[in-house]
Amino acid sequence: MPRLVDHQERRRSIIETTWQLIAGQGIENASMRDIARECGYAAPGVLAYYFPSKDALLLASYQLICERTNERIAAGTRGRRGLAALRALCLEIIPADPLTVVEARVAVSFWQRAQTEEALREVGRDALLYWRALVMGFLAEAEHDGECATLADPDAVADELLNVMMGLHVTSMLDPDAVTGSRQRHLVERALARLSAGVTAP
Amino acid sequence: MPRLVDHQERRRSIIETTWQLIAGQGIENASMRDIARECGYAAPGVLAYYFPSKDALLLASYQLICERTNERIAAGTRGRRGLAALRALCLEIIPADPLTVVEARVAVSFWQRAQTEEALREVGRDALLYWRALVMGFLAEAEHDGECATLADPDAVADELLNVMMGLHVTSMLDPDAVTGSRQRHLVERALARLSAGVTAP
Repeated sequence: MPRLVDHQERRRSIIETTWQLIAGQGIENASMRDIARECGYAAPGVLAYYFPSKDALLLASYQLICERTNERIAAGTRGRRGLAALRALCLEIIPADPLTVVEARVAVSFWQRAQTEEALREVGRDALLYWRALVMGFLAEAEHDGECATLADPDAVADELLNVMMGLHVTSMLDPDAVTGSRQRHLVERALARLSAGVTAP
Repeated sequence: MPRLVDHQERRRSIIETTWQLIAGQGIENASMRDIARECGYAAPGVLAYYFPSKDALLLASYQLICERTNERIAAGTRGRRGLAALRALCLEIIPADPLTVVEARVAVSFWQRAQTEEALREVGRDALLYWRALVMGFLAEAEHDGECATLADPDAVADELLNVMMGLHVTSMLDPDAVTGSRQRHLVERALARLSAGVTAP
């Protein structure tokens, strides 16, 4: 089925070009015509065949980013459990290297539009809930394996960690010189150390 | 100077109308012409006199929101210090009531554009650094007053709290049914309790 493969390849290549445009000039500054040109299409018609609107393209871009993040999480957590798995998950989500920085930029653009587009918001919420479920599972393993004391409020531990990671998408963009990759990893390690210590000084 | 007062009033009124438009339909869906119409101006020329571009209007909107947040922080922390002041600050920043929810929507729109506009990014960073300095000051007071144990890493405590608050801007928008105002306040209280306990179970 060479045609089908072609289509999937083309779709993926359009999305990857879109990521670079979003990261470089912002989604609101890129028209569908600009994106088509950047993809090497003389007319925007080919692009419209795959993605009828900018929202559709942004949604597909965000979905592919979530898929890839989740593939990396699956690879990074394979054979691991508890706090080691939790660490691997966090390191794939925080924007601490060039790849995840581009992903974070797409996410911030996506969030802006998700504010007023229910369909986008739902996809964003699903990604968040999937990560939350993974965090809760790894926390339960850490408790079971005695890596941390019994957690009085595991839901709050998970929410705090998720909100720190979403916050880092924003603060690392506003202040990249201070909120570096190593600073972000330090904050993650600190949260994990607090868990593994069971009790700890803040 | 009635003319000057008029100008300031008009500017403020345009910004407040813009907030509602951003919260309701998204900045990218509102043209300058739409905003002018919503403000009651027949032609967009009057609007352009005050704000030459959408970025200028969004910047002014974000700045006014920061000013108002900071005024509320000043009022809420007056006569307070340490953890009580820190609590008051957090409660003005997290989007846990209808007013701060509108403010958070403007902030998310602003962040999206700040990704590619250095001037906007700088204003966002300044707001963040101002809040960070306040947090650091209140933490130092809490230590001094014996409200918490000596902090091994106060910078990380401040950064964690700020990132949670920025993250709540995102998660409360994606999942408002779960990330309610009371849920957000619970997370803030938990972070403060961890401080005041000195040592605590996570």
